[in-house]
Amino acid sequence: MISKNIYLFTKKATDGSADMREVLGGKGANLAEMKSMGIPVPPGFTVPCYVCNSYHYNKQSLPDGLMNEVKEAISIIEDEVGAKFGSLTYPLLLSVRSGARVSMPGMMDTVLNLGLNDQAVIGLAKVTANEHMAYDSYRRFIEMFSDVVREIPVFLFEDVLDEIKEASGLDSDNELSVENLKEVCTRFKEIYKEEIGEEFPQDPFVQLQAAISSVFHSWQNERAVLYRKMEKIPCDWRTAVNVQAMVFGNKGSDSATGVAFTRNPSTGEKVYYGEYLTDAQGEDVVAGIRTPIPISAKLAKKAGFEGQSLEELMPQSFKELGEVFESLEQHFKDMQDIEFTIDNGKLFILQARNGKRTGFAQIKIAVDMVSEGIISPQEGLLRIQPNSLEQLLSPVFNLKDKEEARESLIGTGLNAGPGAATGKLALSSEKAVEYSEAGVPSILVRLDTSPSDFGGMMAAKGVLTARGGATSHAAVVARQFGKPCVCGLSALKIDENARTLSADGKMISEGDDISIDGTTGEVFFKEIKTSPSEVSQVLIEESMSPEESIVFQNYQMIINWADKYKKMSVRTNADTPRDVNVALHFGAVGIGLTRIEHMFHGEQRLLPLRKLFLSDSPQMQIESLKEIQTFIAHDFKDIFRVLNGLPATIRLLDPPMHEFMPKNDREIVALAESMGITDEEVKQTLKDLSEVNPMLGHRGCRLGVSSPGITSMQVRAILESALTVTQEGIPCKPEIMVPIVMSATELEHQRQVVDKAASELFAELGESIEYTVGTMVELPRAALRASQIAEHAEFFSFGTNDLTQTTFGISRDDAGKFLPIYSSGVPYVNGEGQMEIYPNDPFQVLDQEGVGELIKIGVERGRLTKQDLKIGICGEHGGEPSSVEFCHRAGLDYVSCSPYRVPIAILAAAQAALKEDLR
Amino acid sequence: MISKNIYLFTKKATDGSADMREVLGGKGANLAEMKSMGIPVPPGFTVPCYVCNSYHYNKQSLPDGLMNEVKEAISIIEDEVGAKFGSLTYPLLLSVRSGARVSMPGMMDTVLNLGLNDQAVIGLAKVTANEHMAYDSYRRFIEMFSDVVREIPVFLFEDVLDEIKEASGLDSDNELSVENLKEVCTRFKEIYKEEIGEEFPQDPFVQLQAAISSVFHSWQNERAVLYRKMEKIPCDWRTAVNVQAMVFGNKGSDSATGVAFTRNPSTGEKVYYGEYLTDAQGEDVVAGIRTPIPISAKLAKKAGFEGQSLEELMPQSFKELGEVFESLEQHFKDMQDIEFTIDNGKLFILQARNGKRTGFAQIKIAVDMVSEGIISPQEGLLRIQPNSLEQLLSPVFNLKDKEEARESLIGTGLNAGPGAATGKLALSSEKAVEYSEAGVPSILVRLDTSPSDFGGMMAAKGVLTARGGATSHAAVVARQFGKPCVCGLSALKIDENARTLSADGKMISEGDDISIDGTTGEVFFKEIKTSPSEVSQVLIEESMSPEESIVFQNYQMIINWADKYKKMSVRTNADTPRDVNVALHFGAVGIGLTRIEHMFHGEQRLLPLRKLFLSDSPQMQIESLKEIQTFIAHDFKDIFRVLNGLPATIRLLDPPMHEFMPKNDREIVALAESMGITDEEVKQTLKDLSEVNPMLGHRGCRLGVSSPGITSMQVRAILESALTVTQEGIPCKPEIMVPIVMSATELEHQRQVVDKAASELFAELGESIEYTVGTMVELPRAALRASQIAEHAEFFSFGTNDLTQTTFGISRDDAGKFLPIYSSGVPYVNGEGQMEIYPNDPFQVLDQEGVGELIKIGVERGRLTKQDLKIGICGEHGGEPSSVEFCHRAGLDYVSCSPYRVPIAILAAAQAALKEDLR
Repeated sequence: MISKNIYLFTKKATDGSADMREVLGGKGANLAEMKSMGIPVPPGFTVPCYVCNSYHYNKQSLPDGLMNEVKEAISIIEDEVGAKFGSLTYPLLLSVRSGARVSMPGMMDTVLNLGLNDQAVIGLAKVTANEHMAYDSYRRFIEMFSDVVREIPVFLFEDVLDEIKEASGLDSDNELSVENLKEVCTRFKEIYKEEIGEEFPQDPFVQLQAAISSVFHSWQNERAVLYRKMEKIPCDWRTAVNVQAMVFGNKGSDSATGVAFTRNPSTGEKVYYGEYLTDAQGEDVVAGIRTPIPISAKLAKKAGFEGQSLEELMPQSFKELGEVFESLEQHFKDMQDIEFTIDNGKLFILQARNGKRTGFAQIKIAVDMVSEGIISPQEGLLRIQPNSLEQLLSPVFNLKDKEEARESLIGTGLNAGPGAATGKLALSSEKAVEYSEAGVPSILVRLDTSPSDFGGMMAAKGVLTARGGATSHAAVVARQFGKPCVCGLSALKIDENARTLSADGKMISEGDDISIDGTTGEVFFKEIKTSPSEVSQVLIEESMSPEESIVFQNYQMIINWADKYKKMSVRTNADTPRDVNVALHFGAVGIGLTRIEHMFHGEQRLLPLRKLFLSDSPQMQIESLKEIQTFIAHDFKDIFRVLNGLPATIRLLDPPMHEFMPKNDREIVALAESMGITDEEVKQTLKDLSEVNPMLGHRGCRLGVSSPGITSMQVRAILESALTVTQEGIPCKPEIMVPIVMSATELEHQRQVVDKAASELFAELGESIEYTVGTMVELPRAALRASQIAEHAEFFSFGTNDLTQTTFGISRDDAGKFLPIYSSGVPYVNGEGQMEIYPNDPFQVLDQEGVGELIKIGVERGRLTKQDLKIGICGEHGGEPSSVEFCHRAGLDYVSCSPYRVPIAILAAAQAALKEDLR
Repeated sequence: MISKNIYLFTKKATDGSADMREVLGGKGANLAEMKSMGIPVPPGFTVPCYVCNSYHYNKQSLPDGLMNEVKEAISIIEDEVGAKFGSLTYPLLLSVRSGARVSMPGMMDTVLNLGLNDQAVIGLAKVTANEHMAYDSYRRFIEMFSDVVREIPVFLFEDVLDEIKEASGLDSDNELSVENLKEVCTRFKEIYKEEIGEEFPQDPFVQLQAAISSVFHSWQNERAVLYRKMEKIPCDWRTAVNVQAMVFGNKGSDSATGVAFTRNPSTGEKVYYGEYLTDAQGEDVVAGIRTPIPISAKLAKKAGFEGQSLEELMPQSFKELGEVFESLEQHFKDMQDIEFTIDNGKLFILQARNGKRTGFAQIKIAVDMVSEGIISPQEGLLRIQPNSLEQLLSPVFNLKDKEEARESLIGTGLNAGPGAATGKLALSSEKAVEYSEAGVPSILVRLDTSPSDFGGMMAAKGVLTARGGATSHAAVVARQFGKPCVCGLSALKIDENARTLSADGKMISEGDDISIDGTTGEVFFKEIKTSPSEVSQVLIEESMSPEESIVFQNYQMIINWADKYKKMSVRTNADTPRDVNVALHFGAVGIGLTRIEHMFHGEQRLLPLRKLFLSDSPQMQIESLKEIQTFIAHDFKDIFRVLNGLPATIRLLDPPMHEFMPKNDREIVALAESMGITDEEVKQTLKDLSEVNPMLGHRGCRLGVSSPGITSMQVRAILESALTVTQEGIPCKPEIMVPIVMSATELEHQRQVVDKAASELFAELGESIEYTVGTMVELPRAALRASQIAEHAEFFSFGTNDLTQTTFGISRDDAGKFLPIYSSGVPYVNGEGQMEIYPNDPFQVLDQEGVGELIKIGVERGRLTKQDLKIGICGEHGGEPSSVEFCHRAGLDYVSCSPYRVPIAILAAAQAALKEDLR
């Protein structure tokens, strides 16, 4: 098949259709589809995306012969409209607009009113019976073309306008007389000539050729590149160009123009939601010179425009528009975002696309459309971005309050834990606890956090750190507990002595108000009111009944459907009964990761661990182990009770040891006292224990190999509590997971230790319980040796945090210094624009090409040894939708993620299964 | 084929041969081979290794029916010898000895004189006409059997002996009368009965069965396990058991016993080298009660035993022995280690095996045997352990002096840099430099070293550290410069204030004598004399002519042969003209790795680097870059001159940044002064720059991506110096290598920066030079994405240090805390012995299963994109023989290693090629 350069959407012929968005872009594909449906669309044609590709590969030049094909197409348009390009009597004017595979609103170039020249402007005046409007359009076109196509600075034109207004004593542009406007046009053409060295092009085809090139060119402009990066749109998708006959909403009182959504994009309600202006062109609706009026009578009245709605003023057009709404929704099976123009009483649709919407609206619309029979539950599920569920689960700021607080915004950090929080500044965990006990909400602000800040983090409403990335201790704990969190706002300066916090030239003291928006990363030195999500109020706090919350009902519907279609199960990463409870309410079917080291919160629990590692007295070590065993067992009993028979994968201690060591003199003194040695001795031992690269140090099973007693103690604690709870009549399914395994022998050894401790315990107690033993696959070597390792494992769980760390050779804790540069792009060394070194944060979005290949290798080799090996993932990626989809494709049995991401993972798993069925 | 349990070596039948060592062990295979050759070997049989395997797998029990087969074999031996097992007239006595695939001298159990009982002892007395000897043998047998087979504590027997000697007023065992000995036998049997609960076994077959089991059992004794670990012998090789008729060297003056080598195992000289005793049994030669006498007249005279040599006393036997020597060397084509006994004038060979030898002897014997026509040069090459070349290149302690210093040995660390060094203790680099300037040899002792210690390390004769492994900074620099080095001797306590060093309860002060043996890791608080290697004296120092040194001539012969057969080329890792010069003399054909960061030695050079990273003034940064560029360019000019047209792969700056930062207050003050800021500001910036895991931090090309100016500066320095040197008429081949690449885009970007800097420089100077750009493959992701990365690379070099680090998730700097436990073994949880978690240090010996797979993937995928992609390795493994062999098999074009390992790599590369041909 020879690739076509022109795809018509005219009455005579329509070459495209809605399923050709990869070729024609979303806009072009939909225009063609609508034209075929008989929707009143002004005729035009689309130059497809691959021509844009060829344009960039051929040194920014259009294919040979393209303009001849364009001329043929124009003549078909001319026939349909009855106008003629450049005509003195009835000129055909064109809009030239970009249109990529996915909508990138406002990112690329648009040229309107193309075709105007010294002749056509006279024809336009005639057709619209409005000379003022005609010359106003011409001067706008000259400026737009000069700016967009020729990159002439806009201020040159604005200066002229100001000069003429001043000379005539005018205040605003629309006071300009026809004569003024004619002068403006003349002066604008002079500027053009001066800057470019030739006359302003009078040949409409020359204008058109330049405009098409310019749209292609704009694919690489700075804001488009940035937008693609944010939205993860590949560069090689490119844009199409849509050339379309212009229609005029500014031909008088029976003309109008507007934008509309078929449903409310904020709430999802089914109302005709849109705004319009009579006697206006499209840009006027957006420009803000005249206030646009709601199209529906009801909403217009509400907004103070009683009697001015489209419904009331042009009931026939409103009716037609409503029919178009219905027909488009039925056809495209989604809420539509529409641009329309009424030209002398005749309705035209200029564009229709799936409308952007909030998470709330996404879900409501999906649920409603299913119940309206427009789409199936499967389609409804695929319609929702899993991350949008996060919005339903997070406490939120009132948008208006936030807008009003804008001047106290002091910076934007990493949006590490979604949700909004406001409270008093607390610069230490102690202070946060103090506030909490006094019933005062607080925000804990630290350079970074460590396990000893756990209490403070729980006591605070939100957490803000100056250091650390989206998977730092603060971020992981915050997300796990659904705590709003902003991380790595490096501009923060904390003065520990003066107890002040400053940034962006502003300073507040401990106890002053501060607010953080964990969904956007914004930080304000001001109080902004928040409310908890309705879903949480129903499910977790039970302060609202399901019947009271439509949001909850919709949420529940989606989760029920997702549960039905997903093939992987979803577990949770949780270390406390409270977390587990939350996760189970959200639909988790067990624990995929309990981190014993997370049980060491608070100094009292840290003390025996510190003694264990610092002491060389076997007596003290044994005592410490017993002490630790006691509280671990206590915690596990509660967890098993909440689980009520669901499985729990428990990871043996995997400390980067430094995280647990005393951080300040007070803690050192306390430790020294309790160990009966001097402060100096403690400091010396800490120095000896310190590691150059703790993430690659003496951790995980390495600790269990060098000190098997530490493994045994944990096994006893786990199984003893499981036995106790079983006796209460609650079944328990402990799964013991060995971390940081790099070779089969390591796991073989640890398995022996586990089995021995278990059989000794069972012998002592005269009872036994089933348990399984498996391993984390979190080092490249473990993935490569999976076949040997699987001989000793009943299950694998991919620890993708560490696996990403080692596959990339990047420390999560230190990545903040260069990784943001990698994804935001560095300047091309030769040529313009930004070069994206790595598209996103691999600690948030699984690297399918590198880490993913190791996962596939691990799965394949593991199952080569044990066909029925149970395999899951328990890294942060287990709750990230694209990563969950990858896990499904890789054949994993389950994903595990923090409690507040369980719904997201469930939905993503369902989508992955549905997408596979579609393939 | 049904596996046989018994392999005879008798006149009647011989089942084995020399090529069956995997089945029969080395000893058994050689005994069979010799028997077939007609060498006078006492008859016997071998129970093969796989029976040992079955023994351990079947709960330490021998196969059913084995003893019946043994009985049949014994009757064949009885026929050949004319004696009978347990006979009252002519008893057959047996030796029962272990024999694994490779020799493990003294590691496993041996039982001699088996078959003695209350009857046979009478027969033995008759046959030997020596009642004293018979009862002495019996009491020895009872004790040996009780100890070895039944594990009865030896002191019980020694106490009885002492008691009887005291009662009779005797001083030594051999004064015991026949009556005494008979009493001893009786008492010994009583001890046996008391300990075991049954009579000492009189049935020779019961004795034999127990002895065979005991030899099998001893495969798992502690010293055997340790030895296997050291020598990297797999556990599943197991041992065979050799049961052989005893002959008697103690039948009077026409009987004798001895051990001999066919050549001198220390020097390799072709002399009959051995010792013997008349009228003695084998163990007497080793036991040290009588001093053994050289067999050759010349050596006996030299040792003060004129006229007592075997050559003089038993000329016929000596002649026969010589014939056996020749025939064995011709047959086995290697120097032999032989045990012989002369029984009533008749020569018997009890064992022959390839003799252990020093590196010197290995090489001399190989060269000599080639010139004698016994073996081909290829065989000669394959005969030499590449690491033994190290011995030829290292300064050495006089062995006798070292032995005398034994009581001042304070510990053994990692033998990180081979060679011996002695000097005054220097606890700081400044002190070492001070000593050096005063002409006083010193040993630099530090907790660990950093680049600022470079001067001190060069000034010292050797380096000792308390921390760090075999690839720590100290070790890498030391090996590179051929400096003796012992690392990670954690027992060392350095008191910086008192300027003392203590360990093992001993303490010395700065300035006291200390000696380190980098070949063994031993450290002595004493002076021990050393001398440099002859090879160095000829090649490097040119203080000796080639004609003067046989050692050098032999070395050169080996290298010449190796050069001929190897297929990979060998380059060097070198950063100074001196190093490059050494490496070229050793046969390197270019530089495989120059580390620019190693050029930052001394505070003067570190200062601009520190400024560059600490300053945020662009002016200061540019000045620092220029300053750095100047001295880098200076160094490169000298390096290019020495290379004289050979290629140089230059790695762009890859600092783990912390290594280059000020270490103490003095350095901080100096830096602050030079930057014009306060000490506090420097400290704060250092804190901001500090990384949690520097090895996974902001290093390598990440620095070049975030600060392209740093890359440009280096490119300018490299190419400018290459242009200068080219103008001198010396061709230059710079190869620019980008480190720590994880994705194709990173390399693409850095390549653009390199090319731009180059073309700008060429334009400025009006001249150009060819260069290539390639990358290190040192992260798992780089190996996986090699196909994409190769699009931007002209060459790959595997950085196996970092690749090992990330594949294993182990920090080289921190591995010392657990890796030694991994390779030395942890106790089995159930059962006896040690479980080896990982066989060796993966930073020294390439992990072929994990890291190796990534290398293979990288090679395959890289060449998929570029068939002729040049690929090498430049990690520490490039000089380790088994790793070099792997590189050959993986299809690498070259290996690169530190200068002093170049000869080893050349030999290993040749062996790899030869082994491939054999396959």
